[in-house]
Amino acid sequence: MKRSLTVSWEDPLAAFEEGKKLAPLEYMRAVCAGRIPAPPIARLLGMRLAKVDAGEAVFELTPAEQHYNPIGVVHGGIAFTLLDSAMGCSVHTMLPPGKGYTTLEIKANLVRPITLQTGPIRATGKVIHLGRQTATAEARIEDAAGKLYAHGSTTCIILG
Amino acid sequence: MKRSLTVSWEDPLAAFEEGKKLAPLEYMRAVCAGRIPAPPIARLLGMRLAKVDAGEAVFELTPAEQHYNPIGVVHGGIAFTLLDSAMGCSVHTMLPPGKGYTTLEIKANLVRPITLQTGPIRATGKVIHLGRQTATAEARIEDAAGKLYAHGSTTCIILG
Amino acid sequence: MKRSLTVSWEDPLAAFEEGKKLAPLEYMRAVCAGRIPAPPIARLLGMRLAKVDAGEAVFELTPAEQHYNPIGVVHGGIAFTLLDSAMGCSVHTMLPPGKGYTTLEIKANLVRPITLQTGPIRATGKVIHLGRQTATAEARIEDAAGKLYAHGSTTCIILG
Amino acid sequence: MKRSLTVSWEDPLAAFEEGKKLAPLEYMRAVCAGRIPAPPIARLLGMRLAKVDAGEAVFELTPAEQHYNPIGVVHGGIAFTLLDSAMGCSVHTMLPPGKGYTTLEIKANLVRPITLQTGPIRATGKVIHLGRQTATAEARIEDAAGKLYAHGSTTCIILG
Repeated sequence: MKRSLTVSWEDPLAAFEEGKKLAPLEYMRAVCAGRIPAPPIARLLGMRLAKVDAGEAVFELTPAEQHYNPIGVVHGGIAFTLLDSAMGCSVHTMLPPGKGYTTLEIKANLVRPITLQTGPIRATGKVIHLGRQTATAEARIEDAAGKLYAHGSTTCIILG
Repeated sequence: MKRSLTVSWEDPLAAFEEGKKLAPLEYMRAVCAGRIPAPPIARLLGMRLAKVDAGEAVFELTPAEQHYNPIGVVHGGIAFTLLDSAMGCSVHTMLPPGKGYTTLEIKANLVRPITLQTGPIRATGKVIHLGRQTATAEARIEDAAGKLYAHGSTTCIILG
Repeated sequence: MKRSLTVSWEDPLAAFEEGKKLAPLEYMRAVCAGRIPAPPIARLLGMRLAKVDAGEAVFELTPAEQHYNPIGVVHGGIAFTLLDSAMGCSVHTMLPPGKGYTTLEIKANLVRPITLQTGPIRATGKVIHLGRQTATAEARIEDAAGKLYAHGSTTCIILG
Repeated sequence: MKRSLTVSWEDPLAAFEEGKKLAPLEYMRAVCAGRIPAPPIARLLGMRLAKVDAGEAVFELTPAEQHYNPIGVVHGGIAFTLLDSAMGCSVHTMLPPGKGYTTLEIKANLVRPITLQTGPIRATGKVIHLGRQTATAEARIEDAAGKLYAHGSTTCIILG
């Protein structure tokens, strides 16, 4: 039996231009509140910015069959994408207006398989170090009961 | 203007059960040749196992707007997912029949932004070390001209 | 002007055999209290197990000129060695009697240079995940005022 | 039976100042040839810059008892320090005069234990990506027969 899914999204560059008018944390809050449309990747994967504050960002996703890999569990790439989003956004919240960032690298451990039975998961990202030129952050993915599924860290460079 | 995309896939557990009848490398070759359906995540992201051999696996993807993050380029998670797929599959090809594996961790560097202008990209994964209990692998993402966009490594545990 | 240093240590295999008679946490406590001699590497680098508890281990070191690299600060390898020691020992404390472990990989970020002026530093390692076959841990290096210099994570495999 | 070792070194800041007069690759070649004294950390650990070329650096070390950890093999920190040295120096060779670098992070896998029986080991570092602001490199540790013991990668930031 074939399964299918239709996803839709809005012009990402329009949201990006709109976002430039706001200070970074305000922009993230506008995305979180739905006043600025979520980026296409979020619509494709079904992930959602659930909470954002200075130095912290939380993404949520409910594992679904379209996330499955060939060995019968959610593909590790979904966990990496959630961790990367949560860590990058936690750094983004701390930037002064006019500054941007890009992710140089990510490291992530998968400690338990994520399946349809896991239910909704949350990736919580927190800034560890904010320097003038670089920043580091860490994140954890937990289920509703606080059980740990994955954790990671990242190095970002601050631009502009 | 709203954009939308419809993806479809087949029961991943049926393909998983089918795959268990084959030696690991034969199974990967059957997926590569389309005799066993690609897993849902591959259909969702538009990635394709393009080549597989003992100790090596290549995935291809053409960057598209649905892969975009809020800062106007392809989300790092797409690169991590390609690298993870290429590395995990390169390890998978080396397993004796009846053995499985799982990814303990992945580390990846993003060295250039991936955009719609990049065109098709390939992630090539290769086994570095194959032990009795663990394996390591590395991968690189390049465009059609061989320009490097990302690279990474992984640690897997061998099961069964 | 030439500088020199003499270090001395005891047979590491004798301490290793002695240690096998104790449960892991008891063994670590005996090293911490000086009842079992510190391993040669600790004497060579001048690092000291300062505190150990279930799931946690703290190493101390006072940066000295013999730790310097060619670019005028303490070599990153000293930080990696402290982080690795603190993380590995934190995992070691949690093992049941008769089990051992080995480090599969380490990832570490250096966020500030360590110099003679930094004064004594402490690496605090904590277990993140303890599974049946693998464990993960994290560590931070801070000075006496709690300022962060480096942080990292590790993946260990549990043996025996 | 007590063992002891005496190491000596020269003022690292004098060598650092001397080094600043040379282009980076020339400086590395002067260290390799012994015309500029090796840094203290190299004397302490017994590691030696054995070869250096544009984009590549090789360090050698003969494992000895003073490198041993409490579990009866060479401490992982020795491998991390060799990998870090080889990778950092490979990046250093590629810098234009007047530029410096610092290591942001290192990731390393230990795939086999290193012991006294391993004999001399070599860490070979190679630049993967050299950008305007950042660089990445990788390294492998092998014995005289080419057997792999450890491998890793690094992210550096280019300064000045």
